[in-house]
Amino acid sequence: MLDPQTAVHVHDRLRSSGPLVQVITNYVSMDIAANLLNAAGASPAMVHDAREAGEFAGIAQAVVANIGTLSPPWVDGMLAAVEVASAAGKPWVLDPVAVGATAYRRETAALLVEHRPTVIRGNASEILSIATSTGAGRGVDADADTADVRADAEALASKLDTVVAMTGVVDVVTDGTRTAHVIGGDDRAPMITALGCSASALVAACCAVHDDAFEASTAALAILTAAIEQAGALAEGPGSLRWRLMDALSTLPSSAVADVVARR
Amino acid sequence: MLDPQTAVHVHDRLRSSGPLVQVITNYVSMDIAANLLNAAGASPAMVHDAREAGEFAGIAQAVVANIGTLSPPWVDGMLAAVEVASAAGKPWVLDPVAVGATAYRRETAALLVEHRPTVIRGNASEILSIATSTGAGRGVDADADTADVRADAEALASKLDTVVAMTGVVDVVTDGTRTAHVIGGDDRAPMITALGCSASALVAACCAVHDDAFEASTAALAILTAAIEQAGALAEGPGSLRWRLMDALSTLPSSAVADVVARR
Amino acid sequence: MLDPQTAVHVHDRLRSSGPLVQVITNYVSMDIAANLLNAAGASPAMVHDAREAGEFAGIAQAVVANIGTLSPPWVDGMLAAVEVASAAGKPWVLDPVAVGATAYRRETAALLVEHRPTVIRGNASEILSIATSTGAGRGVDADADTADVRADAEALASKLDTVVAMTGVVDVVTDGTRTAHVIGGDDRAPMITALGCSASALVAACCAVHDDAFEASTAALAILTAAIEQAGALAEGPGSLRWRLMDALSTLPSSAVADVVARR
Repeated sequence: MLDPQTAVHVHDRLRSSGPLVQVITNYVSMDIAANLLNAAGASPAMVHDAREAGEFAGIAQAVVANIGTLSPPWVDGMLAAVEVASAAGKPWVLDPVAVGATAYRRETAALLVEHRPTVIRGNASEILSIATSTGAGRGVDADADTADVRADAEALASKLDTVVAMTGVVDVVTDGTRTAHVIGGDDRAPMITALGCSASALVAACCAVHDDAFEASTAALAILTAAIEQAGALAEGPGSLRWRLMDALSTLPSSAVADVVARR
Repeated sequence: MLDPQTAVHVHDRLRSSGPLVQVITNYVSMDIAANLLNAAGASPAMVHDAREAGEFAGIAQAVVANIGTLSPPWVDGMLAAVEVASAAGKPWVLDPVAVGATAYRRETAALLVEHRPTVIRGNASEILSIATSTGAGRGVDADADTADVRADAEALASKLDTVVAMTGVVDVVTDGTRTAHVIGGDDRAPMITALGCSASALVAACCAVHDDAFEASTAALAILTAAIEQAGALAEGPGSLRWRLMDALSTLPSSAVADVVARR
Repeated sequence: MLDPQTAVHVHDRLRSSGPLVQVITNYVSMDIAANLLNAAGASPAMVHDAREAGEFAGIAQAVVANIGTLSPPWVDGMLAAVEVASAAGKPWVLDPVAVGATAYRRETAALLVEHRPTVIRGNASEILSIATSTGAGRGVDADADTADVRADAEALASKLDTVVAMTGVVDVVTDGTRTAHVIGGDDRAPMITALGCSASALVAACCAVHDDAFEASTAALAILTAAIEQAGALAEGPGSLRWRLMDALSTLPSSAVADVVARR
């Protein structure tokens, strides 16, 4: 659980301070993740090459490493950035997209996990895959549900001393000790490509403005859920849901965020 | 020609089975191609690097190789993926974007053609360029019309034992023996960047759920045309046409697909 | 200042001739820059790799080099393209995204500047950073205002014999001798990611159809401003502003462009 007032505080801070977030993400998510951060009040920068990724992480207030469209130069850039972030005590978020699908993804995620992500944001299958590979889970299930993976997520969070933010029909956020649920959204949201990647970017932005990563991650998912619901009330399909989400985020009342957090 | 009932069958199968399509495509088309596949009911994955492209092709049900924003590592990834797809008898679609423009494009398309694409999807100029380079056509014409290139497309399809899906004001699909036309759409559709690339991805998705690639390709273009028309009825320009296309695809009635196919 | 009739002439030429613009740009801007050029009547091509970038620059009518998501292979491609453009007397536009942020950006911008850009399009901070590094300005200011940087922009334009197109709340365009302002727009436009990058692409397209780069650049920013205002009149946030901008550009009356230019 999260106190609604804390969620409102994170939301206010996000808008008033406009944190600079270095988003090293996949090609598919570039456009939506950057626009979503902008609409929410943060400042995205997609600086990825190893020649500047570490230097830029010194300026950024949070970093995202997303393995959606991997290649060796990008992995080098991610490692350079998260090393700097980790050493400086800045929050960074790992998004292990489709980590169970190939050996290259498993290896890369394992390399990144060594740099102690502040938050791991993924769907239930991805979290289960990471949990299993680190000895904290039971095995891969491509159609896993967040409720079924809750115990694995908690074990993973404890083992790595990280926050796990697992999104799905019901989002589950845990640091191993505390566990929160974020309930709501829109049935058509999964048809918006890279919405999960964008959620990871928003989690990073919230961690940049609030020290408690469990609270910041939960607040980020509540902000996104509240905006999706406002957008969904008027949307006619995934195309309109996407642009209405940007409109909703840019003027989202804090009360809507508090309402989502207060749900049981 | 295609039987309307077959088109409806392909459309139903696309939605009920949600095929996993590996789309190795250009940077410009990433967002729209992924969202269009999602809206249509398929599951896109933009896995491109040679370290995992072949392995992933083993999981995917169809592959797209699109040369829009070429570079050597991406060509390696395309070759790795189509080799696996070809060997496994899985459908794969070549999109030879602007193949006539540079030597590098011509060479890359030639390398890819050796791996026996199930379908080649392009505009009339691109199809003419491929036909010419393989000895099946008469020469390059940057402003070619699909009607004028029909014979070249049929010769190319016969020569390579492939399906040629040529899009334009009137779409022409041929396997060398059978030829179908898909008529309709919206005048403003060419202003949507990478809509052709997205058509290639949808062709791949339909080939994944229906063995006859000629029928599957024709059905894919009919689905897209029907959705464009529904979107166009309400759109005020290329911006609204694009998001309305996503909305239309996500709820497209099969009768609209049948209507497009039934046109003469 | 620019004569409104000249702006209308550039706008008409842009639509009637549909110039081919080679846009070597960052991943975040690919989708919006290509769609914006298409909506405005130009023909974008995102050909970037050194194996074909120079060859393609021989076909294109203008080139953009944008350093937003830099990496060595892309810098090679930019250099290959601008070398050909420069030698052939074709216009090319440098967009020095976040040039002050890292050493790699400063070095790359310096390499590109040696190839004599026709126009440098950036925000006030970026222009100040380039001016400073070439000895034409006073130092970096991350929150610089175009009015405060006008003298630096004029000195930079004179020193490099280029046009500087500096965008912000008020746009300032100068060739060192003449200086024009473009006034107007929408408060929410900065929330649309990569709108500046798209402005650079539109500047290149206008330079392709009108020899006087100062006039062409001013006309480009007036076209964009007029379309943003039309879009903004109906938009509810950054999401709707973006697609409405595409709709507005595709049918923009020349009178709206003339009105923007005529403002004092």
